[in-house]
Amino acid sequence: MSALLLFATPEDVETAFYRAFLDEDLDDLMEIWSEEEEVFCVHPTGQRLSGLTMIRESWQSLMNPARTGIRQIDVTCLLKWQTMLMATHQLVETLRLDQEQAGPMIVTHTYMRGSCGWRLVCRHCSASSETILMPESAGHVLH
Amino acid sequence: MSALLLFATPEDVETAFYRAFLDEDLDDLMEIWSEEEEVFCVHPTGQRLSGLTMIRESWQSLMNPARTGIRQIDVTCLLKWQTMLMATHQLVETLRLDQEQAGPMIVTHTYMRGSCGWRLVCRHCSASSETILMPESAGHVLH
Repeated sequence: MSALLLFATPEDVETAFYRAFLDEDLDDLMEIWSEEEEVFCVHPTGQRLSGLTMIRESWQSLMNPARTGIRQIDVTCLLKWQTMLMATHQLVETLRLDQEQAGPMIVTHTYMRGSCGWRLVCRHCSASSETILMPESAGHVLH
Repeated sequence: MSALLLFATPEDVETAFYRAFLDEDLDDLMEIWSEEEEVFCVHPTGQRLSGLTMIRESWQSLMNPARTGIRQIDVTCLLKWQTMLMATHQLVETLRLDQEQAGPMIVTHTYMRGSCGWRLVCRHCSASSETILMPESAGHVLH
């Protein structure tokens, strides 16, 4: 992925994020985060990550399917709020592990548009209380 | 609170939100949510609330200190991202209960500016993994 990559929409950033995770490409995954704004990431464990260095280290440890068992992520966008320079998406993620499914997870992504197009500035992920899985037809399946 | 209330800043909405909760004023609490945009709220339990009716019913049940034991909320804003029409805040909440403290909670609030000034469109709250409480001097204490 080019260092000068321009994401034209928040959706492009989102697609690139999940693709990079499943491709185990840490450089691509970091490319989607803003370098112009402060960035923040909250994991379902309740861990708070502030800044690119902490985020990179954490996702590096997560991008190992042999360890995490994550083989596929089904993503459904429930709501979007968008203006010219900022957008927030509310998503549901269902993780497909080696032997089972996990989740769903509830995710809030906030994006900002800067000199290099749209980038992610904030990801907040927590476990949903729901046990009913999203129908596959409703979601955007990345695998 | 007037139905024509204009919040001049996202911070004004945020202050009104916590004030209304502690005052047990459900009408004031609902006033801070947008009526022009779809609204969404995620509780630390993982419950997802979509729309004003679900949000009202849920917060009504939470605004009973005899039941919840919540007497005070210490709020610390960690990060803010803001443009002309949209803002996202990352916060830490510590709940002071009758006999103890709970939390911290990690909160993402997204606000949008519409014809009635700033309003909340999305609240995502989940439990933090940290057990170290925020120093009181760093936070904005509402009680």
